[in-house]
Amino acid sequence: MNTQHFDTLIIGGGPGGLAVAYGLAPHQHVAVVEADLWGGTCPNRGCDPKKMLYGAVASRVQDQQYAGHGLIGAANVDWPALMAFKRQYTEKVPSGTQKGLAANGVTTIHGAARLLDAHTVSVARAEYTADFIILATGAHAARPAIPGAELLGTSTDFLDLDTLPRTMAFIGGGYVAVELANIAANAGAEVHLIQHNHRLLRAFPETYTQRLAQIMTDRGIIFHWDTSVTQVKETAAGVALTLSDGTPLTVAQAFSAIGRPANTNLDLAAVGITAKKGGIVVNDHLQTAQPNIYAIGDVIDKAAPKLTPVAGFEGRYVVSQILGTSTAAIRYPAVPHLVFATPELGQVGVSVAAAQAAPDQYTVTEQDLSGWYTYNRIQDRTARATVITDKQTHRLAGAVVLATDAEELLNYFALLIHQGAPASDLAQWIPVYPSVASDLSYLYQG
Amino acid sequence: MNTQHFDTLIIGGGPGGLAVAYGLAPHQHVAVVEADLWGGTCPNRGCDPKKMLYGAVASRVQDQQYAGHGLIGAANVDWPALMAFKRQYTEKVPSGTQKGLAANGVTTIHGAARLLDAHTVSVARAEYTADFIILATGAHAARPAIPGAELLGTSTDFLDLDTLPRTMAFIGGGYVAVELANIAANAGAEVHLIQHNHRLLRAFPETYTQRLAQIMTDRGIIFHWDTSVTQVKETAAGVALTLSDGTPLTVAQAFSAIGRPANTNLDLAAVGITAKKGGIVVNDHLQTAQPNIYAIGDVIDKAAPKLTPVAGFEGRYVVSQILGTSTAAIRYPAVPHLVFATPELGQVGVSVAAAQAAPDQYTVTEQDLSGWYTYNRIQDRTARATVITDKQTHRLAGAVVLATDAEELLNYFALLIHQGAPASDLAQWIPVYPSVASDLSYLYQG
Repeated sequence: MNTQHFDTLIIGGGPGGLAVAYGLAPHQHVAVVEADLWGGTCPNRGCDPKKMLYGAVASRVQDQQYAGHGLIGAANVDWPALMAFKRQYTEKVPSGTQKGLAANGVTTIHGAARLLDAHTVSVARAEYTADFIILATGAHAARPAIPGAELLGTSTDFLDLDTLPRTMAFIGGGYVAVELANIAANAGAEVHLIQHNHRLLRAFPETYTQRLAQIMTDRGIIFHWDTSVTQVKETAAGVALTLSDGTPLTVAQAFSAIGRPANTNLDLAAVGITAKKGGIVVNDHLQTAQPNIYAIGDVIDKAAPKLTPVAGFEGRYVVSQILGTSTAAIRYPAVPHLVFATPELGQVGVSVAAAQAAPDQYTVTEQDLSGWYTYNRIQDRTARATVITDKQTHRLAGAVVLATDAEELLNYFALLIHQGAPASDLAQWIPVYPSVASDLSYLYQG
Repeated sequence: MNTQHFDTLIIGGGPGGLAVAYGLAPHQHVAVVEADLWGGTCPNRGCDPKKMLYGAVASRVQDQQYAGHGLIGAANVDWPALMAFKRQYTEKVPSGTQKGLAANGVTTIHGAARLLDAHTVSVARAEYTADFIILATGAHAARPAIPGAELLGTSTDFLDLDTLPRTMAFIGGGYVAVELANIAANAGAEVHLIQHNHRLLRAFPETYTQRLAQIMTDRGIIFHWDTSVTQVKETAAGVALTLSDGTPLTVAQAFSAIGRPANTNLDLAAVGITAKKGGIVVNDHLQTAQPNIYAIGDVIDKAAPKLTPVAGFEGRYVVSQILGTSTAAIRYPAVPHLVFATPELGQVGVSVAAAQAAPDQYTVTEQDLSGWYTYNRIQDRTARATVITDKQTHRLAGAVVLATDAEELLNYFALLIHQGAPASDLAQWIPVYPSVASDLSYLYQG
């Protein structure tokens, strides 16, 4: 058997793996192995298509917010057209990704990879060797271990539904469940969200997640708190869920959104690499137990949120390590973390809980934004933000925002935290008026 | 007659004057004189109400952009409800402004002010003296010097129309004409825009203004280029305009948007202060010919755009001069300048013309953004941007953006230019994905 050798072999052609491939391609002989769709979860069945569906829904919600305040009626979601639009985008991703890699001289190999030793990988019946190996295999949607679990769809299925089911249930209370339930309900479905405890989005402050749950309830989403699903059965009408409280619930389709375990099925143990529940264990240089094998993105066990731009950041970091342009441990900037609901809920930097636990160090200020010009203008009556500043330096340390287009405020905050910019810097910045940015100096006064 | 004395007397209670008043109030005995509505043009009959009308229209346009791509139908503008919503906001501005000043110990005086000497101002029959006087009287909408000009409305009238006229004409090609014509047309009126030459928005590159004119034409706005109005007559149907090309044009209402001359009717000559066509002449410390009399905002003759945040910036600058916390000449940051049309057209920093005139110094890159994820997602098929970078420093120097929500990109650009942030800074910033900010690193790569 002929064994092909590469300087670096990357397992996983998603945003993390691609960042490594593009960074190394000008300098090295590089290959990427992908077992599924080139481009990975984000552009094929994650963030990108999700936000396309979200955008149409958000436009409808904005119309509704203006009801009685300048607009009559609201556009309706045309699910089949929206799905066709989404597919127009997603169907080009795999071929576009492969072409992009080829154009940069990167070899692409399709199939499931297994580690044979610290320098050898098998894909199908072929073997490849490499000086460096990058594990960037991502994660996948989990289903609960209950009878009939195979009848549950996942986010992948939801993001590719030909028609919008009239009734749906989502099992879970994380960002996937919240985002998809919100899209489905605002597109016109009857939506149930079934959560085993009484808490959504546990990374966010409970005061905020309770507000979001109330807003979603007001829009017709039915929450089943402290409830598990114990069994799923196929019926003529769809799927019948048996809930732990005994309530029968039959919906046209039900989806599991209980988490995304890391794709660690790579024969890691054979080469002495450890994987925990959160994913592959790496050191602060993103190296596994084998120093020439790095792991990045959603497949690793880490404190940083598992997000596309974080995977890209880690990919660029690994490039710097392999090329020797940096030897430092990885340092993450403030990473904003946002749930695309209507309104959006996002946070960045030091958490409210951490700030409240260190009252000598931080000032925590919560503000109702609904009366502010911008949020009154768009009739967002629940807009709210908490800003955390450092008492010593007066610098911005963190923020939580629940508002229409919170992503914009979060991005400003992420930039200011990253730069360590003092509030006095903002006073010298002239933004477009009126705009979200022109409110910033009221939120961050140092 | 008793003459009241103040440390500083500010003539004009708009954004510029208020910035001075709030800045000085903790330190001085301050008065503000206002002849018209407290708060000035911007919140009463300028940017703030304008963007409220714009917002509803923009939501409708976004629905329309999604037609065939996920939404069916579009919300309709309910003009009387929109106007009631606007008035709910504007009607509180004067009293709110006065209360805010009073709460900060600032004396408010209502009436038209005249300068008697470098330290004395008369208002109605009273006289006031002050160590410092600030001229912040702003500007007003002009009407052409033609027979029947009094039949033309201005932006003030447009922003307070009880009902939307079925047919309207706007005379002018500046940002007021473009913004109001765009609102009216997208709200459902037949709109004519009459411009004496063949150019809109002369501060912007012609390639961009031509694109915007084409987009507006596609949305039904009728442009009368190289055309003047020579006479206006009242008719049973509204107003009949006589156009220079001989075409008769009768519309329900016509509006003058030919410019905003400075409000210099203050007996300036009596104290030796000069006013040019552009406004009051000031030095680089914003002092008039009388060193204790400053002028700020739209009333001054200056290179900086006449915008609300610029007036506020100048106000804060004058505070620093009077309090002696700074003695430096005023230095403006990069000021973004944006036309709220659908799409928005904005620019900041070094202009394309200036950059093209200095090819050794600048790189000018124009990009079609319509295929980018964000603009495809919202179906903005005309999105486009030009980015100017400095060849030596690789820093961002300027940008032009024609796109939905261009304000957000412009604000990032303004901040980056202001901070002199290198592109490598962006690579370390993790924004929400996908978002407008996550595209930034493609636009500014240094």
